[in-house]
Amino acid sequence: MKLATQRTSSPDGSLLVVSRDQQRAVPATGIATTLQDAVDRWDEVSGPLEALYEQINAGTVPGERLASLTLAAPLPRAWQWLDASAFPSHGALMQRAFNLPPIDAEFPLMYQGMSHQFYGPFEDVPFPTEADDIDFEGEFGVIVGEVPMGTPAERALDYVRLAVQINDWSLRRIAPVEMKTGFGWIQAKPACSLAPIAVTPDELGPSWCNGRVTATLQVRRNGELFGSVPATEMAYGFHELIAHAARTRALCAGTLIGSGTVSSSDYRTVGFSCITERRAMEMIDGGSPQTPYLRYGELVEMRAFGHESTVPLFGEMRQRVIRYDAAR
Amino acid sequence: MKLATQRTSSPDGSLLVVSRDQQRAVPATGIATTLQDAVDRWDEVSGPLEALYEQINAGTVPGERLASLTLAAPLPRAWQWLDASAFPSHGALMQRAFNLPPIDAEFPLMYQGMSHQFYGPFEDVPFPTEADDIDFEGEFGVIVGEVPMGTPAERALDYVRLAVQINDWSLRRIAPVEMKTGFGWIQAKPACSLAPIAVTPDELGPSWCNGRVTATLQVRRNGELFGSVPATEMAYGFHELIAHAARTRALCAGTLIGSGTVSSSDYRTVGFSCITERRAMEMIDGGSPQTPYLRYGELVEMRAFGHESTVPLFGEMRQRVIRYDAAR
Repeated sequence: MKLATQRTSSPDGSLLVVSRDQQRAVPATGIATTLQDAVDRWDEVSGPLEALYEQINAGTVPGERLASLTLAAPLPRAWQWLDASAFPSHGALMQRAFNLPPIDAEFPLMYQGMSHQFYGPFEDVPFPTEADDIDFEGEFGVIVGEVPMGTPAERALDYVRLAVQINDWSLRRIAPVEMKTGFGWIQAKPACSLAPIAVTPDELGPSWCNGRVTATLQVRRNGELFGSVPATEMAYGFHELIAHAARTRALCAGTLIGSGTVSSSDYRTVGFSCITERRAMEMIDGGSPQTPYLRYGELVEMRAFGHESTVPLFGEMRQRVIRYDAAR
Repeated sequence: MKLATQRTSSPDGSLLVVSRDQQRAVPATGIATTLQDAVDRWDEVSGPLEALYEQINAGTVPGERLASLTLAAPLPRAWQWLDASAFPSHGALMQRAFNLPPIDAEFPLMYQGMSHQFYGPFEDVPFPTEADDIDFEGEFGVIVGEVPMGTPAERALDYVRLAVQINDWSLRRIAPVEMKTGFGWIQAKPACSLAPIAVTPDELGPSWCNGRVTATLQVRRNGELFGSVPATEMAYGFHELIAHAARTRALCAGTLIGSGTVSSSDYRTVGFSCITERRAMEMIDGGSPQTPYLRYGELVEMRAFGHESTVPLFGEMRQRVIRYDAAR
């Protein structure tokens, strides 16, 4: 099934069930108020939500045109956001871009990120200064139910409730500086954005495979194709990321786990899901980066496609970078 | 005023107003349901909460004996927990203990921690294995209202709503390994504990000074004094920590900001707020650490005292370390 969240005066918005063709949506009224509420009570509500999904697919519940609704992020805030860096090609290019030593780790790389705000798919995204070197990072993620401490990877996929698509906005002037402290990122990782539609893994068909979202992530910058990267090189599956995260803590229902930037070793053919990777290639090729970071007014679009799909699996993200205005 | 949270079937518990002498408490019924609700609507509810506080102090509202109530953490979960490391002596001793290079940073060290669960002051704390080298870290923190992005340090104290006392449980076998990735800590930093009483800064008297909680933190291990450390050497005040955190993000109401382990350069006299610091001193003195990490069954107590106070400023924490039992 496919779920989305309508923006309301509440920070958590209001849960919608979206038709398979993503044309129509119906409020989940009487079943679950918000997506967090749904994952908190998944065993109880997933059946009724699926039934409503079948009704809107069959046309027996008309719903409203999805395009006529103001969508928030499907999960507008989360109690926990743990982002991995599971694509080796991304790590290798970032090391090249920032002249960092290789990371010698026998386990998934993961940091805890800001989770109290996720931008909706069409919201402008404000930053305090262009001088921070504004970049995007396209990735996939999963929203889990409550995962007991110590859950092994072999059982971790049982807890995956929904898959999502993420833009993890990143500030590259700050990122390597904070990274050198060993404490991870605060200023370099402001609020992320989510694509509008969260889907149960079965909706992904062959694009959900071995605990991975293997769809192709298409990124456009000001309308021009920046990357069309198949997410087939994830070194760890989400089951391994969940198990890593849950080794010494229980994960609460609604925890979001990210794959890290979708990246391919075949980047010369497929392009990139973040600007810094392309700058790294330019450094490899000619010595200095040519592609500039984002300036105010630039448009970033992301869509994911399955093997045969023409409808974006998680809907569309289309966001403009703007100057933060404290007075707004 | 002084606030606490009674444990209920809800994850956020139920807000209590506690008398100044910490003997009695009254539900904040009709004013605010939870501490998060109170900080979300502080301008509206702080007056009525203060009025109720005066009533319980005057005895015109009897309340119940605080000791008869089952207390949760004052904030049993938070949307955001940002922990600094602002005591230079702690950093220096940790470098010695783990043979780490000095951190060259012209800004406060800070990581984003797990915030979806804080243990209450008397709860047993489960860990999956003693082999992870279980340690405590006593520290202070503040809970803020909504802080706009870009708030400068000069205005940041306006957003401090409450001060709290924290035990940031840490797993030392894992901490330096994760730190070397640059991504911060996931497995090394499981859920923290909070002392039972959150207080407005005015309650701290001279122990709230220059944006710092300057009380003395007393830590006992199995009843024996482990440290009685005056928190007077914080290199950055909470106003500077808030401004650092808010540079590229808004902080939501209820964000918890921590000082990092309370530590003193006079540690030979005052002792320690974590085991690793004492092990570092032993390495400095004789070459090898002698003080073992925590084993199951050990008792950790923490209390903070002001300049002339005999009542612990944030109440008492008394917790036993236990083996995590997946079946429980």
